[in-house]
Amino acid sequence: MPRYALKIEYHGGAFSGWQRQKEHPSVQQAVEEAIRRLEPDAPGIGAAGRTDTGVHATGQVAHCDMARDWDPFRLSEAINYHLKPALVAVVDAARVSDDWHARFSAVERRYLYRMICRRAPLTHDRGLAWKVPNAMDAAAMQAGANYLVGLHDFTTFRASECQAKSPVKTVDEVTVTADGDEVRIRVRARSFLHNQVRSFVGTLERVGAGSWAPEDVKAALEAVDRAACGPVAPPDGLYLTGVGYPEDPFSAD
Amino acid sequence: MPRYALKIEYHGGAFSGWQRQKEHPSVQQAVEEAIRRLEPDAPGIGAAGRTDTGVHATGQVAHCDMARDWDPFRLSEAINYHLKPALVAVVDAARVSDDWHARFSAVERRYLYRMICRRAPLTHDRGLAWKVPNAMDAAAMQAGANYLVGLHDFTTFRASECQAKSPVKTVDEVTVTADGDEVRIRVRARSFLHNQVRSFVGTLERVGAGSWAPEDVKAALEAVDRAACGPVAPPDGLYLTGVGYPEDPFSAD
Repeated sequence: MPRYALKIEYHGGAFSGWQRQKEHPSVQQAVEEAIRRLEPDAPGIGAAGRTDTGVHATGQVAHCDMARDWDPFRLSEAINYHLKPALVAVVDAARVSDDWHARFSAVERRYLYRMICRRAPLTHDRGLAWKVPNAMDAAAMQAGANYLVGLHDFTTFRASECQAKSPVKTVDEVTVTADGDEVRIRVRARSFLHNQVRSFVGTLERVGAGSWAPEDVKAALEAVDRAACGPVAPPDGLYLTGVGYPEDPFSAD
Repeated sequence: MPRYALKIEYHGGAFSGWQRQKEHPSVQQAVEEAIRRLEPDAPGIGAAGRTDTGVHATGQVAHCDMARDWDPFRLSEAINYHLKPALVAVVDAARVSDDWHARFSAVERRYLYRMICRRAPLTHDRGLAWKVPNAMDAAAMQAGANYLVGLHDFTTFRASECQAKSPVKTVDEVTVTADGDEVRIRVRARSFLHNQVRSFVGTLERVGAGSWAPEDVKAALEAVDRAACGPVAPPDGLYLTGVGYPEDPFSAD
């Protein structure tokens, strides 16, 4: 069975997360059902990151095994045809080797978090960003964010229901940029604990608002205690933007 | 009665245009009803631009007359409170003189049109941009757009139901920029004919796709004939981004 890597984009507000569940619509279910309109016996698919309810993706990656030898572009078009009108789309597809695995072959996950700082309710960006009422000090946020980069025990920034074996992870990048009333936080690591990015963002928001000093982020990290974390940021602003592999399966396009 | 200028943002997909109608929800009605929750006898409001069904705004301007002497910021907060959960928000408010008029005092309208060039259906940007399947040649589009700048008879780019007295207008700017798979067209003029920007964009799309040469835009303009226009672009990508006045009422913030 030829295997294909799929780059998938979706609006998290339309789904109860990536992973298939009995009672609630998931992205996985939507994509699997579209694939089974093409090949009724197609096996289930696996993804690089299990995004939570409300979390978006512009670069989720999954793989699927097909009986027929599909041209990758035609496969993406056929899946998208059957996905309509759901707010999910295959934006790229590529043939990969049989031992390539969307999750286990991945060496990096990249996230973006969008905050919009203003008083008025959001309109075009409702559900697509976290609205915060205060202006943010992005330089202070970056100073706090720098303490999170590197190899640490991230127990402070880990959801109680996290199933990872170890809270020790290496974070490769936390970058804070501001453009008008929008603050963007980019985070990059090989893998993440459950709610780690949203826990980072909720804590950095406290720094941006002036309630915490940048050094308080260091203290929270070193506390190795969930109670030391700032409030967890809502899912609305979080996007899985990309997954890194030793060789990019989509680069040949 | 003190008069206030309101800067208003809205998602056009949620409304049948700006102007109040009997059967369909309009932005004007939503804002007027919110204002009348504050002052039941408040008169109706007028706006600088009557956007069509599906057309968005980030900088529509209207004025309202209130019986009470409101602090402008508190007025915007109070209107937004009563607008919830509609996809419309007052993003700025300012006290203006009694003879200031959102429409008649305006000396410039600015529009942005967003095109996204890709095969896959849109997710986060669905309803917020025009998806076109082909890559666009932005340089050719700009070359075509340059013929539209200046004083011309724009009969070619005017809807049949347009009520303007004259088809002769001066267009001050048509700028085409590309960023990744997105093409943005900015248009600026004192005033516009009905469907003028969407007629420009639909025509420039033909140039961007290579179906028309840039010089064909000149020929279409000089034809002074509605039949010479390209297809009218959908409302989804169009945003009223700002209105110019001899003195910006919001600059004092």
